[in-house]
Amino acid sequence: MTISVAVSGASGYAGGELLRLLASHPDVTIGAITAHSNAGTRLGELQPHLHSLADRLLEETTVQNLSGHDVVFLALPHGASAEIARQLPAETLVIDAGADHRLEDPAAWEKFYGTAHAGTWPYGLPELPGRRERLRGARRIAVPGCYPTSALLALAPGFAAGALLPDDVVIVSASGTSGAGKAAKVNLLGSEVMASMSPYGVGGGHRHTPEIEQGLSAAAGTAVTVSFTPTLAPMSRGILATATAKVAPELLKELVNTDAATIGTEAGEASIAAQLRRIWLDAYEDEPFVHVLPEGQWPATKSVQGSNHVAIQIAFDAHAGRVIVCCAIDNLTKGTAGGAVQSMNIALGLDETSGLSFQGVAP
Amino acid sequence: MTISVAVSGASGYAGGELLRLLASHPDVTIGAITAHSNAGTRLGELQPHLHSLADRLLEETTVQNLSGHDVVFLALPHGASAEIARQLPAETLVIDAGADHRLEDPAAWEKFYGTAHAGTWPYGLPELPGRRERLRGARRIAVPGCYPTSALLALAPGFAAGALLPDDVVIVSASGTSGAGKAAKVNLLGSEVMASMSPYGVGGGHRHTPEIEQGLSAAAGTAVTVSFTPTLAPMSRGILATATAKVAPELLKELVNTDAATIGTEAGEASIAAQLRRIWLDAYEDEPFVHVLPEGQWPATKSVQGSNHVAIQIAFDAHAGRVIVCCAIDNLTKGTAGGAVQSMNIALGLDETSGLSFQGVAP
Amino acid sequence: MTISVAVSGASGYAGGELLRLLASHPDVTIGAITAHSNAGTRLGELQPHLHSLADRLLEETTVQNLSGHDVVFLALPHGASAEIARQLPAETLVIDAGADHRLEDPAAWEKFYGTAHAGTWPYGLPELPGRRERLRGARRIAVPGCYPTSALLALAPGFAAGALLPDDVVIVSASGTSGAGKAAKVNLLGSEVMASMSPYGVGGGHRHTPEIEQGLSAAAGTAVTVSFTPTLAPMSRGILATATAKVAPELLKELVNTDAATIGTEAGEASIAAQLRRIWLDAYEDEPFVHVLPEGQWPATKSVQGSNHVAIQIAFDAHAGRVIVCCAIDNLTKGTAGGAVQSMNIALGLDETSGLSFQGVAP
Amino acid sequence: MTISVAVSGASGYAGGELLRLLASHPDVTIGAITAHSNAGTRLGELQPHLHSLADRLLEETTVQNLSGHDVVFLALPHGASAEIARQLPAETLVIDAGADHRLEDPAAWEKFYGTAHAGTWPYGLPELPGRRERLRGARRIAVPGCYPTSALLALAPGFAAGALLPDDVVIVSASGTSGAGKAAKVNLLGSEVMASMSPYGVGGGHRHTPEIEQGLSAAAGTAVTVSFTPTLAPMSRGILATATAKVAPELLKELVNTDAATIGTEAGEASIAAQLRRIWLDAYEDEPFVHVLPEGQWPATKSVQGSNHVAIQIAFDAHAGRVIVCCAIDNLTKGTAGGAVQSMNIALGLDETSGLSFQGVAP
Repeated sequence: MTISVAVSGASGYAGGELLRLLASHPDVTIGAITAHSNAGTRLGELQPHLHSLADRLLEETTVQNLSGHDVVFLALPHGASAEIARQLPAETLVIDAGADHRLEDPAAWEKFYGTAHAGTWPYGLPELPGRRERLRGARRIAVPGCYPTSALLALAPGFAAGALLPDDVVIVSASGTSGAGKAAKVNLLGSEVMASMSPYGVGGGHRHTPEIEQGLSAAAGTAVTVSFTPTLAPMSRGILATATAKVAPELLKELVNTDAATIGTEAGEASIAAQLRRIWLDAYEDEPFVHVLPEGQWPATKSVQGSNHVAIQIAFDAHAGRVIVCCAIDNLTKGTAGGAVQSMNIALGLDETSGLSFQGVAP
Repeated sequence: MTISVAVSGASGYAGGELLRLLASHPDVTIGAITAHSNAGTRLGELQPHLHSLADRLLEETTVQNLSGHDVVFLALPHGASAEIARQLPAETLVIDAGADHRLEDPAAWEKFYGTAHAGTWPYGLPELPGRRERLRGARRIAVPGCYPTSALLALAPGFAAGALLPDDVVIVSASGTSGAGKAAKVNLLGSEVMASMSPYGVGGGHRHTPEIEQGLSAAAGTAVTVSFTPTLAPMSRGILATATAKVAPELLKELVNTDAATIGTEAGEASIAAQLRRIWLDAYEDEPFVHVLPEGQWPATKSVQGSNHVAIQIAFDAHAGRVIVCCAIDNLTKGTAGGAVQSMNIALGLDETSGLSFQGVAP
Repeated sequence: MTISVAVSGASGYAGGELLRLLASHPDVTIGAITAHSNAGTRLGELQPHLHSLADRLLEETTVQNLSGHDVVFLALPHGASAEIARQLPAETLVIDAGADHRLEDPAAWEKFYGTAHAGTWPYGLPELPGRRERLRGARRIAVPGCYPTSALLALAPGFAAGALLPDDVVIVSASGTSGAGKAAKVNLLGSEVMASMSPYGVGGGHRHTPEIEQGLSAAAGTAVTVSFTPTLAPMSRGILATATAKVAPELLKELVNTDAATIGTEAGEASIAAQLRRIWLDAYEDEPFVHVLPEGQWPATKSVQGSNHVAIQIAFDAHAGRVIVCCAIDNLTKGTAGGAVQSMNIALGLDETSGLSFQGVAP
Repeated sequence: MTISVAVSGASGYAGGELLRLLASHPDVTIGAITAHSNAGTRLGELQPHLHSLADRLLEETTVQNLSGHDVVFLALPHGASAEIARQLPAETLVIDAGADHRLEDPAAWEKFYGTAHAGTWPYGLPELPGRRERLRGARRIAVPGCYPTSALLALAPGFAAGALLPDDVVIVSASGTSGAGKAAKVNLLGSEVMASMSPYGVGGGHRHTPEIEQGLSAAAGTAVTVSFTPTLAPMSRGILATATAKVAPELLKELVNTDAATIGTEAGEASIAAQLRRIWLDAYEDEPFVHVLPEGQWPATKSVQGSNHVAIQIAFDAHAGRVIVCCAIDNLTKGTAGGAVQSMNIALGLDETSGLSFQGVAP
């Protein structure tokens, strides 16, 4: 079977990663490659790493150019993708790597994005409870944001199992600079970002906050409140999410003193740690791309570089009464383009892992 | 006035940074430079950046070699410094960049370090309430750990002002690799750490945790419980601490709905944010090295590289009912050697800023 | 067809990259994975990026463990591979990623390696004139060094065409730190190498010098003398070779003044530049992995990261009478493991590009 | 004595580095700080590392604003500085960090810069033969380019001593990205430059080429032809120059076989190496900032980061008949702002090293 695909936004980082993956997908033929201001340019000039596609010319991002493909990937600024998607046939599989169709709550959308809500599409994170089914046969898919992908994979199992308290979640994530896009900005120059860590969007203002809360609330069956702080790390790719929540009191009863702020018995601590670990192991047992690391090993973003793999580790801090989950993904692969291809595979009934790598490019 | 100083542990990163600062300190003459296994080696071979000291030979770290100086800096593995310090005259100013004399609670020391407690020395973080006074004239000073320096400067004002709840503090810090020392280890090779973020010591196990709790508890006047997660970032120097705590209910009363999990009125939010900001501005108003950035600007570790400067910014997240404080320091300067020199200046009655730079080396 | 392969030296960088590529090679089954001091360890502990092989245990590197496979890859210190290879059956395809069997001249071997010469095997750089044929059906293959791969691909076409003078070749190469291996050494710590460039093996002492001269001399049909300087760059992977040689006088005759040190007419310069460019274009016209970039575009190592691709550009400097060729490869892929897999493909009559990527992992 | 200085171009990297150094210069008071499009902005917003100057406002770069200072530093695009300088009083010391007044040959200027030649000023590289004298009392000084600073310090002693052939010089330099300036360009984004090496301006087209030839020719007393290739390295600061030239035949006579392409006796080689080394040692014996490293040690750019130091090492390659000199500087310090301050010190009769650091910021 050969599936024809079109990729819009091909001069950016998300578009480039989509093309990188699709170029070696065994079931796919790449049709139109489109862009906005770079239409007419040779792809090799903009994406010099895509050697097998170097001589392809970028077409204009129009409904006409994107039509006639089995699948259309949209890697466009928010607002633009809803506009295009509306005009594509219902039977075309449209996969939106942008934000337009992720949020279910129009009020949250309007608060964080300032425009009218464009509707909600099936959410392309099949590892969340109940999500894979909704992707089967879907013809519209919203790819999750990169921060939400890592944050939700980190904490959803705990919330789904009722092991975590919903009002005290703190997530601090470090992202590679490609997450900030390819627009020329002084604060993203190599001279500025190399050898430097800095936060941004602090205080709840980052647009991925409501998306994280939406996913965790769905897993918990109750409203979850999140304090989310993104930081920029001196690397091109990768997200390391450090996510922590208080453990539910019923789980802590094995501590002699159940006050979460007091250290209990070692045996009690070990038992709770094992119970918590079991929750994540069970949740991801059959997942091809999510891996709970053996005890003692911690995820590093480089170990998943260029792959669709997700590396997770869990710790229980009895003293603070908290679970801390660290999750590493490649923001461009599992966090964007890999998640998109995985979702396409599910929607079309292909092998879910087709065209995706389990091996990171390291060191 | 010329002060003679000795530096032990001169082949490591802390020792190298001490020498870098002391070499341009206007009141100091560098006497003995000592090391353990590298005794006999030319300093330029081990610390090629210290050009004006390149031809100095490292002596053995012995009490005899360190004796006869006004000030002795110890940059030794924990355990070793207590042993040496015990044998130096009481009138010598001994400044320990190691951990031996930081913790007040012998039980915490023994739990985290596994050896007998060596006693507690005045704590070299003069910006904490009441600490500067105790350093004046002191002859034994414990330099704070690098993570505690940034975490305490981030949160102590809020606790001292009674604005934060003590049982829900989360700190996630990203450190440059020099914080992990100069021992040859595969996991610290450039090939491993470049382009990668990874956590370690997760779950409350890092030895700086009790030191952070000790400092915050002293500021709060009550026991503070901290969940602390350190991560390794692909840079040589710098710490970015992202520290967050729940805001005390009495401060939140200006929100129409004081439930911390609910967004209140904008005016109420702005008022609380301003009150919180005022606490940090007041706390650091007269501090030469700590700077609360103007609103809208966030700290970046590179902006303090090589300097003793501390850059801080505060955000109030009304939705989560939390304050988030980001603090950037150079782990080797303000976080170790700069803090040590600043403490020496205070102890000896010199200008507190002597020999220390306000300017970071950037870009 | 399924080919069984064994990989020795699996805990190092070359071994890890071999496994990364072989794990997704469609015709290959991975048999024994062996190591020396790490025998008995879980692979995931040593190579955390190889997720699909994480639970495999490393066996001891012995002839017995390596026997019984169609192909044996040796990624061992020099000396060790010759010893093992001698004991493997003649019909086994043995591919040595080490240096033991690269040099044809026993005197050069002994001068640079200090041990007895182990003999010469077909050289696994099929893009050199006449080399691909010798690899077909071969059962012993020496994989070129990473520096020689880039240097030879940069200059061999010019020498084969008689366009370059043989006694004035200068090559300066920048390599990622993985080229220096995975042994724990202070000078390779992330803290040391990040944000720093440094040379090593300057003055003709690097062991890859005779290998570069051997390859260029074979292409030229006369002895070529090379000044080669390797430098270490702050990145994990990649080599950028800047290679330059004087252009032969007969080519320069179109300059009004044929003195190489004098700038001639612009038309003459353009004509010579075009003739030179044509030599490289013709040499690599049918090569799947070597790409002479369009004029105006220069190779960047990141554009070939993780791929077997080679990006080349040529400039003619009329003023200096020199051609300058810049060549970017991934030292671990095309420079080691990719070259090894490509050679295996040729030796066994598979599609030469099987299991190898044309797309770099960028940004 | 207090000298009042003005700095123009203060929002760029050169201007920022000038301010960083001048802020801790003991004899200097910083007057006007000017910029073009950023006039009116708080300096702390543009140069967040300059903490002690953070609240200064940028003025417009006009003759009026720059007037009334003892010294005016120009860190402006070429063309702009000549225009301003023409209108400043003759008794004001004007130090141009730009290119306008470096080249002596109007034809070379016009060929490489395309505008009319603005005249030549004393060249601010006092370590070159005869240059320091011309700086004493000067009121117009042209700061050398960053690449020329490192290239000239590497090779000038050899040419001045007549030890090198003038027609076969190859220089390959790796520069940190700050050398490419602070303008927002996609190819300079962190995502693009991290983990990547790439060349540019290959083939003799870089504007620093005629400046290097001018300096070497002056040292040699005859025209020197240079092949110069700059490359961009994944670091913010630093230049590593690898410079090589053929050794003059009279020096090679101690080789049994004086054919440069043939290895001679070991004793002969050692003797030539020692003679060559002596030339550089003698040339820099009394220089405060230039250091020929002990044998066996090679320069690393990080060892000079933020300092005015120059680290040099020399190797003799008997086989190729070449000397290879590696030279590391900080492109912004010794390569720009440090060289400017050093020149100011000489011109005004201050201690030449005042306000400049010998210690690099490492690791």
